[in-house]
Formats: sequence, C-alpha cells, structure tokens
Amino acid sequence: MSGNRDRYLSDCRELVLGEIQSLVTHEGPDAALYRAVLDYPLRDAKALRPALCIATARALGGMVEEALPTATALELFHNAFLIHDDVEDASEERRGSATLQRVVGEAQAINVGDAMLALALQPLLQNLEVLDLGRALNVLDEVAFMARTSAEGQALELAWIREGRWDVSEDDYVRMVRKKTAAYTFVAPLVTGGLVARAAPEGIEGLRQLGDALGVAFQIRDDLLNLAGDPRAVGKETCGDLWEAKRTLVVTHFARTAEPEAARAATALLDRPRPEREARPLEQLRRQLAARYAQGALDAAAWAEVEAAFEAVAGPAPKTTREVAALREELEAHGSLRAARDVADCWARRAEGAWNELEGRLAAGVHTDFLASLVSYVVERDR
Amino acid sequence: MSGNRDRYLSDCRELVLGEIQSLVTHEGPDAALYRAVLDYPLRDAKALRPALCIATARALGGMVEEALPTATALELFHNAFLIHDDVEDASEERRGSATLQRVVGEAQAINVGDAMLALALQPLLQNLEVLDLGRALNVLDEVAFMARTSAEGQALELAWIREGRWDVSEDDYVRMVRKKTAAYTFVAPLVTGGLVARAAPEGIEGLRQLGDALGVAFQIRDDLLNLAGDPRAVGKETCGDLWEAKRTLVVTHFARTAEPEAARAATALLDRPRPEREARPLEQLRRQLAARYAQGALDAAAWAEVEAAFEAVAGPAPKTTREVAALREELEAHGSLRAARDVADCWARRAEGAWNELEGRLAAGVHTDFLASLVSYVVERDR
Repeated sequence: MSGNRDRYLSDCRELVLGEIQSLVTHEGPDAALYRAVLDYPLRDAKALRPALCIATARALGGMVEEALPTATALELFHNAFLIHDDVEDASEERRGSATLQRVVGEAQAINVGDAMLALALQPLLQNLEVLDLGRALNVLDEVAFMARTSAEGQALELAWIREGRWDVSEDDYVRMVRKKTAAYTFVAPLVTGGLVARAAPEGIEGLRQLGDALGVAFQIRDDLLNLAGDPRAVGKETCGDLWEAKRTLVVTHFARTAEPEAARAATALLDRPRPEREARPLEQLRRQLAARYAQGALDAAAWAEVEAAFEAVAGPAPKTTREVAALREELEAHGSLRAARDVADCWARRAEGAWNELEGRLAAGVHTDFLASLVSYVVERDR
Repeated sequence: MSGNRDRYLSDCRELVLGEIQSLVTHEGPDAALYRAVLDYPLRDAKALRPALCIATARALGGMVEEALPTATALELFHNAFLIHDDVEDASEERRGSATLQRVVGEAQAINVGDAMLALALQPLLQNLEVLDLGRALNVLDEVAFMARTSAEGQALELAWIREGRWDVSEDDYVRMVRKKTAAYTFVAPLVTGGLVARAAPEGIEGLRQLGDALGVAFQIRDDLLNLAGDPRAVGKETCGDLWEAKRTLVVTHFARTAEPEAARAATALLDRPRPEREARPLEQLRRQLAARYAQGALDAAAWAEVEAAFEAVAGPAPKTTREVAALREELEAHGSLRAARDVADCWARRAEGAWNELEGRLAAGVHTDFLASLVSYVVERDR
C-alpha cells in the first residue's frame, strides 16, 4: 500500500510543480527572485497537501483539472509558511539542506515568502475559469480562513516562547496545533477538495472534522518522532524541538507534572540559547585569548580579568548535546512521551471515527484508497 | 488647500480604521495577535493609499461604500509590507516609535505581517457583496498583481544590498522603484478606484500612467528628503538611507560619476555596518576590559594582547555620524542631489501630463480637488 501511496503523492506533486513553474518568470531581472521561490518546492518533499486536495475532489466525483489550481495554491501557501517559519525559528536545515535564509539572507527569505503568498492568489483566480463562480468563491473563502487561522496558531506558539511561558495546558496546546497545523495541512486540503467536487454541507463538515483530528494526531506524533533519535548522533538534527524550546505536549507535560525542581531545571535548560553554527565573535575572541594565555602571552592575573569580563558580558551558556540528551531521557523516564502518545492515540481514534462516517460518501477506487492509506498512516504512525 | 487635503485624508483614514477594527478579534487567545495587527495602522499616519482609492472612485461617479473594502485591503497590505520591510532593513523607528519587531520580537513581527496579508483578503471577498462580480474580480486581480509586483521590486533592492552591488544604473533604479513603490502606493489605489467606478479602459490606462509617474517622482523626492536634515541633529533619524546603504539615485549617481577613488571610498563607507542601538556583547566586553586597564588591573602588554585579539575578531567598524555627514556633503558638492532632483522633475512633469489628460474625465468637486492637490503636492514637493 505504501508503494501506491508514494506513487499517488509523486504524481500529484509533478502536476503541481508544473503549475508552479508556469506561474513564475524564468528570465529577466526578476528571475533570481523566482529561482528562490522554486527552491523549497523543488527540494525532496512529499507534497501531501495537494495530494489530499486532489484525492478528495476525485473521490467525490470531481476532475483533476478542477482541483489542480487549488492544490497549487495550497502548496504555495505551505512553502511560504515554511520559509517564514524557518526565519522565525532560526532553523538551520530544511529538507536536507540549508534553510533559505542561509542561502539568500533573512531579508530576502522573508520577501520570497511574501512573493509566494502573492503568487498563490493566481491559481485561486484561475479557479473562476475552471469552476463555476460559487465553487471558486467558496474555495477562496476557505483558503483565506486557513491563512488567517495559521497565523493565529503561529502567534500563540511564538508568544509562549518569547514570553518564556511554560504553563501551557493540554487544551492550550491542542488549540494551538489545530490552528497552526491542522488548519492548513489537513482541513483546508480536504475541505477545498470537497468544495471543488460540490460535496453536500454534511460531507464538508465531515471532512473538516477528519482534517482537524488528523492534524492534531499528526502534529503530536511529529513531535514524538522529533524526539525519537539520539541527539548525539552525527549528521542529522534530532531533538530539534528541544534545541528550539518548542512547547510540545511532551515538554509541557513534564513542566506541569514533574517534581517542581526537576521541572524548573528542565525549563531553565530549554530557555538557554542553542549553540550557533558559526562561532560568534565573542566565542572566537575567547578562544583566541585562551590560546594566547596557553602560549604564555597573558599571565594568570590578566587571564582571570579576561574571564571575569566574559562572565559579566556573555549571556547564558548555550545548551550542550549532553544536556539535551539527558533531558530527553528524563522526559521518557517521567512518562511524558507516553502521555503525549496517549493524547495522539485519542485524536487518531477520532480521525478513524470521522473517516468511517465519511467513507460511504466516497467512490471506491484509487483516490479513496489513497485517502484511506493516508488516514492509516497518520493513525498508525510510529505505534 | 493643504487644510482640505489633510481633512480629506483623515476622513478616509477614520473610515478605513473602522473597517480594520471590525475585521479583528478583540478578545480571547488571539487578541494579542490582533493588538499587534492594529499597532502600525493606529500610529500617526496619513493613510494616503485608501484616500487615493476612495477619491478616484468618487471622482468617477462611484460611491464611498463601493470603494471602502478595497481601500481597507490596500491599507492592510501597506502595513503588512511596512512590518516586513522594517524587519528586512533592521529599521529601528517607524512613525515616531520603535518598530514592531522591537516591541514583539522579529519572529512575531513576521507573523503579524502574514496575518495582515491574510486579513486583507476578507474585504476583497466582501467586494462580491458590494460590487457586481466583474468589478469585484477585476479589483482582486489588480491587487494580486500589485502584491506580486511589490515583492519583485523589493527583491531587486535587497539583492543589490546583499550582493554589495553599486553598479546600479538610472534605468535599474527606476525599474525597481516602479515595482517597489509606485505599484502599491499609487498605481493600485488609483486603478482599483477606477475599477470600482467602472472607468473605461482608456481611463484605467490613464490612471495607471499617472500612478506610475507619481510613484517614481514621489520615491526620488522621498530619498532626497531623507538626506535633507543634518545627521548630527539629535532626536530624529536623518540620512537613514545612508545608514542602511540603500541604493538611491543619489548614491548610485555618485558611485557612477565621481572620481573612482572617491566613489570607492563612498561605497566602502556605505558597506560598513550601522552602529547598533544596544551595544553588542563584544563592544561591552571591550569597554569592560578597557576600564580594568585604566584602573591598572591589566598591564600594557596584556591590554595590547586584548586589543590585537579584538582587531582580529571584530568585523569592520560601524559607520560614524561624522563620516555619514561628510558623505552627505560630498554627495551634494558633486551634484548627485541635483541630478536626482532633475530625474524626479522629469517624472513629475510626466505625472502632470497624465493628470491633465485625465482631469476631463473626473467630476468637478471635492474628490477631484483632493486628487489635484495630491498631484501638486507630489509634483511640487521640496522644490
């Protein structure tokens, strides 16, 4: 089944990439901008959202040409969000290579995201030629709602980090994830697919509930996968959420339920900065003076002065790999991974229930099979 | 006349702010995001773009209710661009107080801009209730084109700065400014105003040409105003473009036409970083160790070691106020301000020509008077 699923995904991806390519300018003074626009979409990625939209439309009797502009818009929104997220989180890698801001600079990366958001409006306007007016406008409405909702979810998470808040309840977390992840990863693709295929209001409501439950289960499992590897392993970023101090269900469970002292120690560690890839000037300076001290060019008294000055000026020391690995083990020993897994299972069961109610509305065939395999993938992922 | 103009602007601003207020959520978990969304629109600003849109629509026989949603969308786009620009340029002040990223952090500021871009779609969808379908879609098309064009213009300017390019011709500069400034400050407000009022295609074309010429004249004069004050004056940022190394017509004229050595010295100065508002840790450390040296806690040999280490690690020294002021005088003495003023005058004359052709289509009254006074303001500004 997973072979079929991958084939379905890659077929949809190829269609959508063709559409995106046709939207951009390949020559002249703007070509550099559009090369940057194409960077993330052309990296190795599943293109899950377009496939969900196309499969839903087709399983409900729509045609691929009717769903393609919407699927294209969703993929553009997704990649614009990724670019801005990477800047916001100061992430270093995306899909196996350097994040866009490390390639073109932060300023240009923000602007490339804006260009993609503008570009995404074009296929939504093309919908007016491909669909009748009512459907085209319903899709536009849903996409506008999705964009607004995603920004609301992202705002909640960024505020927790900026304000150093760790008193995040399960309800808070789920509210944030429904907005930040479920809305644009599952709800919008499924619902717009349904709108394209003229699904009845109850069908649309069922798709919305399915997307919502899948989104929460998917995000919690993603958080768990993020903690699955050993952070000491070389060449692959694991525990990125711990390095970035993300308020996942796992760490907020620990912050809420561990012994107060252990909880304080954990959040204090998480709040410290992550080490930077390039040594900062301050660190370079320290190394240089330490070397001169080792060579005898500075005496012990002078070195003590230098060290005291560093202590006064430098902020908290960055997290170390050893500390992050120890915290990961502590989270597991305390049962915080298990607790998060239980919540994910609960949302996965809701997704299964929504799917079972919905399945009767869908035509048997490859499109419904793809959706079914996708639902099982999310529901069973990492169990 | 300027009293009437200001009254017209503030009336339009009040209408649009009321619309924006009605779009946002004032309570619950998302309220903090929407307070940040309202921050820039509520600061002291002219709200030029909505007024241009409303006045054009009304001067062509449209009603204010027909133009208001579009005017609202334009104001939201404008403020979203300002927020992202301020992050991209690392600007410190906007409309007399700290830039949004200094209030809510860079990450949240980027996200607030995204929320405004999403929010801006709502009034464009409301247009479908206020206007007939054809006009609503024409407006949406024009706004999507404007958003894309602005990002293209911004990309050109950011690339010049990032790549350290100073070989920017007058044509390059004008192409960038038409996209970055004219498209969303004048062309989109005038053209969508015309579309709302069912202007004939020739009328729309005339509005487009007027907006384009006004936009270029406006931006060059804005660049000149930026250089008008004395950078040594306290309390007001003048010469911000020199601090930020913007590729204005003034400095690119100098880079192209001054003696090679003077041109090299000028661009080398511009390429150096601007001093940061908060002293960076490296600077703090240097001050601390210098104080200990002054107190006799470090001997001369140790201090020499420390200074050598600083020299090796620190990047180029930031620009100083004295250097920036001297460059400003050099630009003036070389005739680069005059040269830019001549180009602005040329575009101002084009704008006057476009206005004269257009005026016959407009109904006599306050709306046309406002547009006329705005055109003279841009055309005569700073002469």
